[in-house]
Parts: sequence; C-alpha cells; structure tokens
Amino acid sequence: MPDDNWLVLDKYEALGNDFLVLVDREGRSKLTVALARAACDRHRGFGADGLLRAGPAGGGARGGREAGEVRMSFELRNADGSEAEMSGNGLRCLAHAAIDAGAVAAGPGDSFGVSTPAGRREVRVHQLKRGWMWASTEMGQPEVRGEPHACNVGNGQVFVDVGNPHLVVLGPDPAKLDVASLGAELSSELGKASGGLNVEFVALGPGRDELTMRVFERGVGETLACGTGSVAAAAALRFWGRVGTKVTVHQPGGDVEVELRDDGVAVLTGPSRRVGRCILEGDVP
Amino acid sequence: MPDDNWLVLDKYEALGNDFLVLVDREGRSKLTVALARAACDRHRGFGADGLLRAGPAGGGARGGREAGEVRMSFELRNADGSEAEMSGNGLRCLAHAAIDAGAVAAGPGDSFGVSTPAGRREVRVHQLKRGWMWASTEMGQPEVRGEPHACNVGNGQVFVDVGNPHLVVLGPDPAKLDVASLGAELSSELGKASGGLNVEFVALGPGRDELTMRVFERGVGETLACGTGSVAAAAALRFWGRVGTKVTVHQPGGDVEVELRDDGVAVLTGPSRRVGRCILEGDVP
Repeated sequence: MPDDNWLVLDKYEALGNDFLVLVDREGRSKLTVALARAACDRHRGFGADGLLRAGPAGGGARGGREAGEVRMSFELRNADGSEAEMSGNGLRCLAHAAIDAGAVAAGPGDSFGVSTPAGRREVRVHQLKRGWMWASTEMGQPEVRGEPHACNVGNGQVFVDVGNPHLVVLGPDPAKLDVASLGAELSSELGKASGGLNVEFVALGPGRDELTMRVFERGVGETLACGTGSVAAAAALRFWGRVGTKVTVHQPGGDVEVELRDDGVAVLTGPSRRVGRCILEGDVP
Repeated sequence: MPDDNWLVLDKYEALGNDFLVLVDREGRSKLTVALARAACDRHRGFGADGLLRAGPAGGGARGGREAGEVRMSFELRNADGSEAEMSGNGLRCLAHAAIDAGAVAAGPGDSFGVSTPAGRREVRVHQLKRGWMWASTEMGQPEVRGEPHACNVGNGQVFVDVGNPHLVVLGPDPAKLDVASLGAELSSELGKASGGLNVEFVALGPGRDELTMRVFERGVGETLACGTGSVAAAAALRFWGRVGTKVTVHQPGGDVEVELRDDGVAVLTGPSRRVGRCILEGDVP
C-alpha cells in the first residue's frame, strides 16, 4: 500500500442520497471527471451518487464575494462526471463534512453562507450529534413554469424550475407506478429542450400539508430521495392551493420539510449522516 | 468524528466483484449480520458485494489444522448478512488484502494455504504491482449433479456443486436475457432445498475453449462476475464435452481462466485490485 498521494474522502448520506466529500480548505484540489467517475463507481471505486468539494469561500464559484459570512464553496460532480449546479441533500452533506473536519466552526443554532454555482445558499444547523446532523438550506426561488400540453398522466402536471428543471405529476398513487419507465419516458419526451427533466410523482397526504413522493432523476433513474424535487413538489402543490407554506415530503429514503417563504425562497430541512472515511491511495485520477 | 472504536476495512475488487476486507490478525473480530448489512449497503454504508474477514489460521474454520503452510482463514458474509461458504473472487481479494497488510509474507511465485468453510484452499501469487495482483486459487472439486426436471430455459441445464450450489444454463445468448428476473425465478424455484441457487447463463465462444457468461448470485442479484460460477460453468461445459481442460470465462466484469486438473480440482486464475481504505467510526454494529 503506497503511503504518499493519499486522497481523503469523507462519505455522507442524506435520505440515502450518498456523497463522497473532499474537504479542501486551501483550495488546492480539483474535481476532475476521471476522479468523480473512479471514486463514485460502486463496484470499482468507493461508490456514491456524487463527489463534492468543500472549498474555501471565494474559491472560484459565483457568489463567493459577499460578506465574511460566506465560509465555503460548493462544487459537485455526479457519478458520471458531469457537473451539477446544486443538490439540496448534497449541500447538507457538504456542510456536515466541513463542520466535522473543522473547516467551518458551527453548531446548533449557527448559520453560514455557502457559495454555489446556483448562487449563495444559507445553511442553518439545528442539531448535530453522533454522526447525524439536521440542518436547513436555502434552495433559491422555485418557479412554476406552466403545464405541459401533451401529458395525460395523473390529475395535474406542472413544470417547476429549482435551478434545475422538474415536472411534478399529482396522482395516481406513486406506490403503484413503474417510476423507472414512466419517469424515463416523461423525462425525455417533455424535457427535450432542457436535456431531460427530473420527474416527481406525488400524492397528497397522509396528513394535512404532507406529500408522498417518488422521484425519477435525469441521468440517474429512480432515486431514494431528491432535495430539489421535494422543493418542486411543494411549490407545485402550493401553486394548486392544495397545501400551506410548510410541507412535509415523504420519500422512500426518508422525510424532509419544505418551507415556502414570503420572499419566494424555499427552505429545505432534513438530516444528513456521516458514514465514514474513504482513503484513495496512489495516483489520483 | 469520534476517534475510538474505529473499524478499518480495506476495499478490493476482482472483476468488479467488490469486497470490504477486515484483516483480523489476532482473531478478535466477528462478522455480524448487522455489520455486513451496514457496511455493504451501497447508499447508507460503504457498499460492497460482501464483507470478508481474513483471520488467523485455525481460527475456527474447518481445514485450519493442516501443516503450517495454512496461513490464514476465510470468512465471508454477503451484503444481505447471510454466510457464504466460498467465493473465488473473494478469496483472491482476501489473500491480496492479507499480503498488503503484512499478515502474510508472500510475493510472486509464492503459494500458501487458506482455511475456508468449504475446506483448505491453496493460493498462488503470480504478479503483484501497483495495487494489482494476479493469483490462482484452488477451488475444490466441482461436482456435476445432474439436470433439473422442470427447466425449459436454454439448450442445456445442469446442477454443479462448487462448495456452493449452482445451476448452469447453456444458451440462449446471455446478452439478451433479463438475468435479474429469470435468475431470481430459477434460483428460488429450483433451489428451494438449498436456500437458493447461483445461476450462470452461458454461451460458447467467441473463441475455442472460451465461454461468455452472466451470473445471478443468490442473496445479491446479477453481479459483474462470479468465481465459483466461472468454475461451475467450465465444469458443466466440460461435462457436456464442449470445452477442454483450460477454459477462459468472459464476464461483464472481466475475464478469468479455469483449469480443470486431472485430480478433479479446479484452479481459478484472475486479477484483484486494491480500491482503498474505508474507516467505519463510532459503535460497530
């Protein structure tokens, strides 16, 4: 085992959405396509949905020039090596990793800014214990963009932009759907212009201001949970007048809360969990 | 991040068959169902096909009482927590990990014994460099056990025992099969008595003494490769008189060689590769 050129990656998951996080306090590392693919490969690497870099504030991403409260930057590559602008679950994992590594000094009640390719995002820590963190993250202003003309699935369909494009479909019961094939079909047919859509299949309930959802993510397939998808679903159901401004979203991987603030900004609250440390030895791709 | 109770697991893969290896030189660790499930979970753990323990020789497994050349013991739990008697790819990964960790002093040209629940197995190292190892492992005597009565898939079917139970199906073209669903069906229907079968879907070629194969592993699903499955396939095709005694087996994850020796013992030769180190912190399940 070589003892030079080690690359330390910390693995975190949020509702089963898992990430390898490179805490890069000095801004010296780069997320290459090759590194993302090698590290995220589930059989020949460590395996994850994506590779995150928690860089220093102002480390090249837009939004890094604000006041000192911006403490770090967010960079994400998907498992296929492509760049992603934002991930709600990923942002909590990145903040969690930065706190665990001591790169950001923050605990319950504290908040700090993170610069991302989609703009500045505020993270507020609620709880932090035994490898778990609960935190809220600003998710920008979701925009309802109108209904598709040629979609007869469910009882309502609407496009929502959350920095990435979504189609929210209300009913039928998500538990009974073949999400993988129906999602792929809608994603490519209705999302030709945007390189594919993320599709949320949503039912109201079981309680008041609660949604139950399954997600098809473009470039991935059905996933256990999706942060931007949760925001899109809450915004769509609010648009239709079926929920209030604080919504619980139940997904196969777990639950999150979405608050739709008066200023139009959505706030996503949920857990993240530290899995452990992964060390890549030898030449880093 | 807690700094006590760390559990160091080294990740290796052989043809995309991946394992977390616990090198337990003093025989103090135990592979629990809970640990295997937690560590092997691909979204909430590190992710692997199985969890291996490289224990000291004579550490409780059968076959550990031979001459001093038995240097270690093999223990494997699948990702679902179930115990496995043997895995050809797993045995190379375990030997590789033990050598890297210094638990066994061996290099190219050396061979040593490993005690496994299926009996003593000899490992011979051919090459070892830059994280890769090529090695041969004895796989015991595969036994062709006859044909199933109620199976009309393919042009030939036979049960083979390689320490674990296999069903080898010759043709149709493995590339065109839904291995996940067909494998699950055959595994449970024909393997009721043995707790499920591993099922190999095999075609002859492309070259002489070559096979092309896809595998359904019980307790896992379709995998990129299977060592005992390669041996079972070679033994079945030899039984049918379609190949000689040295067979190359092509699988989605890569190629291995199977030699069917005159004494009935099969020898499996192939690569293994070190991925890196995973550290599980806090309370070990």
